[in-house]
Amino acid sequence: MLQRPPATPGMSEDEVDTPALIVDLDALEHNLDRMAAYCAKAGVRLRAHAKTHKSPVIAHWQIARGAVGQCVQKVAEAEVLAWGGVGDILVSNEVVSPAKLARLAALARMSRVAVCADTPAALPLLEQAAEAAGTRLSVLVEVDVGAGRCGLPAGGPSVDLARRIAASRHLRFGGLQAYHGAAQHQRTPAERRASVDGAVAAVVETLDGLRAAGLEAGIVGGAGTGTFELEGASGVYTEIQAGSYIFMDADYGRNTPAPDFRQSLYVLTGVMSARDGLAVVDCGHKGIAVDSGLPMVADRPGLVYHGPSDEHGMLDCREAESPPLLGEKLRLVPGHCDPTVDRYDWYVGLRKGRVESVWPIAARGAMA
Amino acid sequence: MLQRPPATPGMSEDEVDTPALIVDLDALEHNLDRMAAYCAKAGVRLRAHAKTHKSPVIAHWQIARGAVGQCVQKVAEAEVLAWGGVGDILVSNEVVSPAKLARLAALARMSRVAVCADTPAALPLLEQAAEAAGTRLSVLVEVDVGAGRCGLPAGGPSVDLARRIAASRHLRFGGLQAYHGAAQHQRTPAERRASVDGAVAAVVETLDGLRAAGLEAGIVGGAGTGTFELEGASGVYTEIQAGSYIFMDADYGRNTPAPDFRQSLYVLTGVMSARDGLAVVDCGHKGIAVDSGLPMVADRPGLVYHGPSDEHGMLDCREAESPPLLGEKLRLVPGHCDPTVDRYDWYVGLRKGRVESVWPIAARGAMA
Repeated sequence: MLQRPPATPGMSEDEVDTPALIVDLDALEHNLDRMAAYCAKAGVRLRAHAKTHKSPVIAHWQIARGAVGQCVQKVAEAEVLAWGGVGDILVSNEVVSPAKLARLAALARMSRVAVCADTPAALPLLEQAAEAAGTRLSVLVEVDVGAGRCGLPAGGPSVDLARRIAASRHLRFGGLQAYHGAAQHQRTPAERRASVDGAVAAVVETLDGLRAAGLEAGIVGGAGTGTFELEGASGVYTEIQAGSYIFMDADYGRNTPAPDFRQSLYVLTGVMSARDGLAVVDCGHKGIAVDSGLPMVADRPGLVYHGPSDEHGMLDCREAESPPLLGEKLRLVPGHCDPTVDRYDWYVGLRKGRVESVWPIAARGAMA
Repeated sequence: MLQRPPATPGMSEDEVDTPALIVDLDALEHNLDRMAAYCAKAGVRLRAHAKTHKSPVIAHWQIARGAVGQCVQKVAEAEVLAWGGVGDILVSNEVVSPAKLARLAALARMSRVAVCADTPAALPLLEQAAEAAGTRLSVLVEVDVGAGRCGLPAGGPSVDLARRIAASRHLRFGGLQAYHGAAQHQRTPAERRASVDGAVAAVVETLDGLRAAGLEAGIVGGAGTGTFELEGASGVYTEIQAGSYIFMDADYGRNTPAPDFRQSLYVLTGVMSARDGLAVVDCGHKGIAVDSGLPMVADRPGLVYHGPSDEHGMLDCREAESPPLLGEKLRLVPGHCDPTVDRYDWYVGLRKGRVESVWPIAARGAMA
């Protein structure tokens, strides 16, 4: 069931019910503008990843600033974007379930959609769905460029799959998906550069093979918030798939240097119990992701979040200049933005301390 | 937005869309019956914790077997239960926000509700809400019986707060909240017994003080799935607040001995990519909680889930008798049941391989 909105426009931040996902709109717009300016200057297209924001509203803000469309990981996310009027959507992921593929092919009547494959075994499934829907599905070959998750080896195996797609009746070869997820959070520039150098080499090898086969990759997509300037400067990537840059999180903050974006996403939490040196807040790991490290308390030096349980977080206040008061509201910087967003039904947009807008996280929980 | 149900009654398990939260109804009913039988025999009341299941449907199954009512952690959970016809609800947690207290007091017109406090500073807030709603709120004193989270020290401070509640115009002293959360997952019987012995001593000390003050604790509540037989045998706890026993999870499975309940909760996931020795499934940590350890693959010896990312899980298949096939569906045992349930909108109830029922996780995301 959809939860009630935690705020209404015009409220002060202190009136927002907790826990709530809040967005500093000035910081968000700064981030949107900065990435748009980068892509324009670097001559690469932005296909921002909606797995982060799960919101057609934010997708349209990105598109209004020049993004060519959106990436998603799930067919259910693609549906929410298409229903919200987003016209160009890439499922940057493999889909092999006939039921899901039927939904995706049906969506191709509404928006431009593409999907990835990493095995010839998937092609009959994709073909069948496209044929049944009377459409032609665009399929990208995912190349494993170093992440070791999905994807085919670069070169021959990837080219062979591209050839099969291009030769099929109901599919169109859409290009290469070449995302190096593991590189995004490598801490030093040297590590990230080595990873992306490897990814670029894998892409170049595959593009050479495609050229020899007379095939063209319409999209060469990849990159995230941790490395996009490397792929963007590579000369081979044509689309940047960054997502987190709009919000940022504590984990990206641990990269050196941290990506040059402002923190715009917070969880607002309330102090529900307080004693000497300890405060308990109403946001535990049901309300903020802990998979990539614990949240940090914003704007209150010395307060250390620790020991999250389902519905509680503990704040060590022994080093704080002033201990938090019962009922006080505090901003937490999530350790990891994407899964934190996915725990909420509403964004609360704040500007200069006031709630400016409240809008649904329309693809919250869209996992299928 | 509510997601579409992943199944319809009559489907086979293999037709359920993934990822999906599935429940083995035979195992669930076994667990419900076993706890009901225990409580009847031990002479303690069951007030099962709805933070686990978030479903009025399951709450009523517990009540039909003798449970006196439900616990929740959040006012929003209490609302969903009350709106689902649950008549007796304890918020086993502190609430100090005036907006939340107004909602809770309003709910007292519909169901019997109680809430906890651990500071005299909360009483004016509780009083104001109760007075404005023209009701009398039942308030339990939370005693810190060893978990070191919320709660007052046993004895004097707790008795003093009880006295203030009893003397107030719009509140009623409802008893003691004495939950030792940290004890539930202590691995050895000796550790758990030592923790609960400490909790019982804290309760006894406080009850002695209450008696001297002429106060009676209507409820002495606490205990979870890891320790309930200890509190149940203590002679001082009157209500057991176990929640996870209905589902179980991998983390409770690491207790020695594991609690004597059957695993009834799984996440059904699909294989979306496969290569030598590795399979990738469509459930990462957005779809299954990893705060208390990784999920385990059920019924398929040798498959090891590792490396979860947002939307992907990796299965090491090198030791498997047979590698999983592309598109195959597998059951994952969650590391932690409560936060896993909170990631889904629907329960899919299965019996003998068939979908028997699909019902909403009505309080999913109810954090406020």
